[in-house]
Amino acid sequence: MRAMTIADGTVRVDTVPDVVPGDGEVLIEVRAAGVNRADLLQVSGNYPSPPGAPSWPGLEVSGSVIAVGEGVDLPLEQEVCALLPGGGWAEFVTVDAGLVLPKPTGVSLIEAAGLPEVAATVHSNLGDQFSEPGQRALIHGASGGIGTFAVQYASKVGRAEVWATARETFASALHDLGASEVIDYRHDDFAARLRAAGGADVILDVIGAAYLEGNVAALRPDGTLVVIGLQKGRRAELDLGSLLPKRLTVRGSTLRGRPLEQKRDIMSAVHREVWPYIGESIHPVVDKVVPMERAADALQSLRAGGQWGKIVLSQ
Amino acid sequence: MRAMTIADGTVRVDTVPDVVPGDGEVLIEVRAAGVNRADLLQVSGNYPSPPGAPSWPGLEVSGSVIAVGEGVDLPLEQEVCALLPGGGWAEFVTVDAGLVLPKPTGVSLIEAAGLPEVAATVHSNLGDQFSEPGQRALIHGASGGIGTFAVQYASKVGRAEVWATARETFASALHDLGASEVIDYRHDDFAARLRAAGGADVILDVIGAAYLEGNVAALRPDGTLVVIGLQKGRRAELDLGSLLPKRLTVRGSTLRGRPLEQKRDIMSAVHREVWPYIGESIHPVVDKVVPMERAADALQSLRAGGQWGKIVLSQ
Repeated sequence: MRAMTIADGTVRVDTVPDVVPGDGEVLIEVRAAGVNRADLLQVSGNYPSPPGAPSWPGLEVSGSVIAVGEGVDLPLEQEVCALLPGGGWAEFVTVDAGLVLPKPTGVSLIEAAGLPEVAATVHSNLGDQFSEPGQRALIHGASGGIGTFAVQYASKVGRAEVWATARETFASALHDLGASEVIDYRHDDFAARLRAAGGADVILDVIGAAYLEGNVAALRPDGTLVVIGLQKGRRAELDLGSLLPKRLTVRGSTLRGRPLEQKRDIMSAVHREVWPYIGESIHPVVDKVVPMERAADALQSLRAGGQWGKIVLSQ
Repeated sequence: MRAMTIADGTVRVDTVPDVVPGDGEVLIEVRAAGVNRADLLQVSGNYPSPPGAPSWPGLEVSGSVIAVGEGVDLPLEQEVCALLPGGGWAEFVTVDAGLVLPKPTGVSLIEAAGLPEVAATVHSNLGDQFSEPGQRALIHGASGGIGTFAVQYASKVGRAEVWATARETFASALHDLGASEVIDYRHDDFAARLRAAGGADVILDVIGAAYLEGNVAALRPDGTLVVIGLQKGRRAELDLGSLLPKRLTVRGSTLRGRPLEQKRDIMSAVHREVWPYIGESIHPVVDKVVPMERAADALQSLRAGGQWGKIVLSQ
């Protein structure tokens, strides 16, 4: 079968052995696949596939079930999307049945390809944060794939007041997704803005070190900072003297490194608690669709930044 | 009435106006009062009483109910202990009825005076950490007031495997309280020891900055660090690059700064979930009992360190 394998810091069309589903697995004929920052890291040699996963990129796909292994009760030809440890940039992929969800009604297969990573990332990190309506959430990097989803999730599922950081050009579109306030981080101090307004209850951050001090300052008492990306550094000074009196929580997590059992639990919760919103009040945001054989161009676009939502590969 | 008021960086016997209970309050005739590190900070001018609290120290007492305000349903002469925002080093103290608990059976009033702070601190920070038996907990400063309680709590209430840091002279006594391993922090690298054994699920820390890097290294995946003291510094570098792949949580909190409503909820949970263990499998550890008029000596002892459990003032 065809797959986009890694060579010389980029990807190219290649031929790899056909895959067959093992016990508990599903074989999917891939219609579309999401492009994620982790793919960029993997292609540049900094984030190898976990053991057992194919060596080529691709952390999420949509497509049709064309075969199932022992113990899997899924109808053939069902349209699905799936979270993968890797290997989605190919004609076919096998995946644990617990990581496969039916395509939500009301979205296309192209749109569904970009959902598993963002839905699982956002729900696993924010799912316990909105115990009551009216909490204030701050979403950094709000124009990206995770950001456009998180803004909608926090506002619709979490019934939160959503603040977002993004370039000003995205402000109007972010308001349409549910953001109350959009702060252009290039001209404005997000921490000062939040502090003046009483602070945030929860912050979802993909920036890392460069924002740590500002994020801690921007939280109100009993607030939580969730760091899921390190786009601007990993090491920063933490002032525990601010954490204690405000009773703050700082959490970090990545989705890919979780054990399979955790991923199954997350996908099951996503199906139950998030899927009903998809196509209704939460709409996947796709910046552009690129033919899979031109995945190298898609990676180049993601590296350059400035997308509105996800980049999706189709075939 | 008599109270130990603050003057020139220490405390002295003084006469202050009598106190009367307001609506929802209880008047306690004080039998004994705990000595806490926050009292030390307050006496040295670094931790003023919160608004509305007496200006003299004392964050916990035991004694007898001698009057109640409107809306309080507590029998007179009941033996109780109470968590206070301050003012316990006196003949009498008034306190919100929601912060008063009956003295546990099986302990003396002297022992009960040292319970409210440690029980509320430990339960509010560790109460959600032992969802299943067999978790591994690391308790720093294990020979102190909070430490001796936390070791017993984690082992009995949390059914955890407890590791402790303390001077070697306390090792045998800490084993008796339920610790499996005791690490003398002066000669041994606690983070290396924990890593070699697979890491800790939860760490309770009173040290702060000096231990932050070691604590993060000592946690296993999905682990939690709870910082409740800053005995060795407040600012330290945090490596978010370690937090994310291990999915770690870092929390900070203090008890005194919590809103009254939170404190009431905590004391209510302590009564329900911790009190049944007190005098049964959890025994208060009191290093020494000092007459209240010699509270200055008690502060001096606490400053010098090396206690086994709490210092309690009696009258």
